[in-house]
Amino acid sequence: MTSAAVIQRCKELARFSEDPDRITRRFLSPPMRDVHRTLGEWMERLGMHVRVDAAGNLRGEYEGRDRSAARLLIGSHVDTVPDAGAYDGVLGVVLGIALIEALAKRRFRFGIEIVAFSEEEGVRFGVPFIGSRALAGTLDDGLLSAGDAEGITVAEAIRRFGLDPARVPEAAVDPRGVRGYLEFHIEQGPVLESLNLGLGVVTAIAGQSRLGVTFRGAANHAGTTPMHLRRDALAAAAQWISTVEKEARTVAGLVATVGQIDAKPGVGNVIAGEVRTSLDVRHASDVERHAVVTKMLAQAEQIGKERGITVEVEHRLDQAATGCDEGLVKTLESAVSSAGFAVHRMVSGAGHDAMVLAGHVPVAMLFLRSPKGVSHHPDEAVLEEDVDAALQVGLNFLAQLEAQGG
Amino acid sequence: MTSAAVIQRCKELARFSEDPDRITRRFLSPPMRDVHRTLGEWMERLGMHVRVDAAGNLRGEYEGRDRSAARLLIGSHVDTVPDAGAYDGVLGVVLGIALIEALAKRRFRFGIEIVAFSEEEGVRFGVPFIGSRALAGTLDDGLLSAGDAEGITVAEAIRRFGLDPARVPEAAVDPRGVRGYLEFHIEQGPVLESLNLGLGVVTAIAGQSRLGVTFRGAANHAGTTPMHLRRDALAAAAQWISTVEKEARTVAGLVATVGQIDAKPGVGNVIAGEVRTSLDVRHASDVERHAVVTKMLAQAEQIGKERGITVEVEHRLDQAATGCDEGLVKTLESAVSSAGFAVHRMVSGAGHDAMVLAGHVPVAMLFLRSPKGVSHHPDEAVLEEDVDAALQVGLNFLAQLEAQGG
Repeated sequence: MTSAAVIQRCKELARFSEDPDRITRRFLSPPMRDVHRTLGEWMERLGMHVRVDAAGNLRGEYEGRDRSAARLLIGSHVDTVPDAGAYDGVLGVVLGIALIEALAKRRFRFGIEIVAFSEEEGVRFGVPFIGSRALAGTLDDGLLSAGDAEGITVAEAIRRFGLDPARVPEAAVDPRGVRGYLEFHIEQGPVLESLNLGLGVVTAIAGQSRLGVTFRGAANHAGTTPMHLRRDALAAAAQWISTVEKEARTVAGLVATVGQIDAKPGVGNVIAGEVRTSLDVRHASDVERHAVVTKMLAQAEQIGKERGITVEVEHRLDQAATGCDEGLVKTLESAVSSAGFAVHRMVSGAGHDAMVLAGHVPVAMLFLRSPKGVSHHPDEAVLEEDVDAALQVGLNFLAQLEAQGG
Repeated sequence: MTSAAVIQRCKELARFSEDPDRITRRFLSPPMRDVHRTLGEWMERLGMHVRVDAAGNLRGEYEGRDRSAARLLIGSHVDTVPDAGAYDGVLGVVLGIALIEALAKRRFRFGIEIVAFSEEEGVRFGVPFIGSRALAGTLDDGLLSAGDAEGITVAEAIRRFGLDPARVPEAAVDPRGVRGYLEFHIEQGPVLESLNLGLGVVTAIAGQSRLGVTFRGAANHAGTTPMHLRRDALAAAAQWISTVEKEARTVAGLVATVGQIDAKPGVGNVIAGEVRTSLDVRHASDVERHAVVTKMLAQAEQIGKERGITVEVEHRLDQAATGCDEGLVKTLESAVSSAGFAVHRMVSGAGHDAMVLAGHVPVAMLFLRSPKGVSHHPDEAVLEEDVDAALQVGLNFLAQLEAQGG
């Protein structure tokens, strides 16, 4: 299959949407049936055995020569954010199928299972990774009872799709039977493009801290309150946002973002009495990330102290970093370089299904350049040359796994 | 009348509200009738001639000995913001009546007219100074056709109150018949309290610049976009807000405020692509104010340039500073010092009825300390000792005007 055909297939799947004017496909929404049918037909044509597990994951098995050999999983998700692009998630599944097709009926000792995860974005239930959690065996009753905007639970959504939530445990994979998990995914960031590279080998998925930081001063008349008698919460927040940015720039590989800000009363002629902000910090090292967050919060405190402003911190999320499997990463690097490409190791700043599976099976991940870094947007794209490169790397990877035996 | 009685009268008027639980009294709203009735009774008891002009201003004349002598106006407004305090505006009217009472029937050569302006806050129609504009002769047809939230125009509101909008021009004063206008008002800021002073002589009302400043960068994923590849509109806005504050601190008497900020998309895990802010700059010198605004906008441009962010500026208001009358200010200062108080000259950062009248008649203004700088709030207060001081100063002022002849 050509890279153009891969891209064409992604666009074909993009037509299956909850909204005729844009791409929106949430967990087990009606268009997911069309995606399953289409992917299933493509897989069956290649001699694969296709099923949908109780968590709504479409799974196609391409048998190996040795039924006792641990199989390789290749996959990504097929749900989308609202008004999405055509490649986030979907590309990883279509590429997996294209690899099987490229084998032209050749079989390895190990089998290959292509997984189209039902849910990764967390849009419908506010809980991400429903699909991969099922494979990891961590889709528990608590998650199954989470409700969507209409009060429908995950379990009920599964039932309405014609599946049996009681059988979710059967979707879990036995780690002893799995050689590893490989995910192709668009980068969703500008790094590869800025380096003029098509591919990146992911070594880890960054840990995340998410916090709320509120500054409380005194709302006062903008005309009658002299500068030296103000307790301006927005001036304090602004000073802190600048220190956050400055601090983040001193630590290699760290990103820190204040993306949310709300000022009260929020009118032009009144000094802001209260300002709520968010802080999002990510890094491959949890130790380093925690140290930076601590320092940033101390800076907020210090700025508040100098200005007679109180600072309140709310810790919302502290998610540990996830490492990819060293052995599989080496194999993937070798596959990249033997295909004639430069090896660029990188950390993923976003979460992925691979992160959820990493605690259970060895994982590896290959990023494809995102033109202009655009994702979660109709302009999301991928270059044909990068899809070609990923196909070559994938074939090399399979060949090397076969050569490694195991 | 004691200062306690003056405060008691302000509290009595505060009971007349559109809302039983808080003080809200907009232009010609039903409780304004009660205010007129009560003020009218107090004035008539002192032998004053009372009328309501076509703009809804209550006006009481205390005749002088010489009908040909230009009269002195003393006044302030009796409308309020929603959930107001009891003194903003009202105190100036009650103090004027208390001064007449303190004269104990003594007459000066010149007459004194107490004016309770119908509207200053701009709450009902979004247009402030309806009352004082009528006296200044600038309440034109455009303003009369402004509508409130229910679509009722100023003219219709006047009609519903039983007045005739066609007679608004008759409310205007002939400058030749007016010696000057004196306004007592709470400071609505923290300056006098911080200096441990009860009174301040207003020399000018600051000019104002109000602008909208929008920063446009690129919304991107907070996890996948490295610091050096960001065009973070909020980081740019924050840097600029800090320069605005720093710049304002370098110019004596200048205040600059960013009170409004809105970030898009405004969520924690997305770098802000667009941030809208407001800028409010006030100073007694228009030249100085314009220079500072120009500099602040250049700084925004420079910050944007360094960050690949465009800056869009919207000029919303450019209101010139208004000077009080030099002669009346000197008389007021002399009245303050002869009453044994320190003379503190100050600029008003807020607009007042005196500002509107200043273009037509000589004006002077005396500020009374605002405890904790609080105003437009139920906690708004005034100290008895400051009301006593204002009464003494007012009597001295009247005596000096009489001594000056003219």
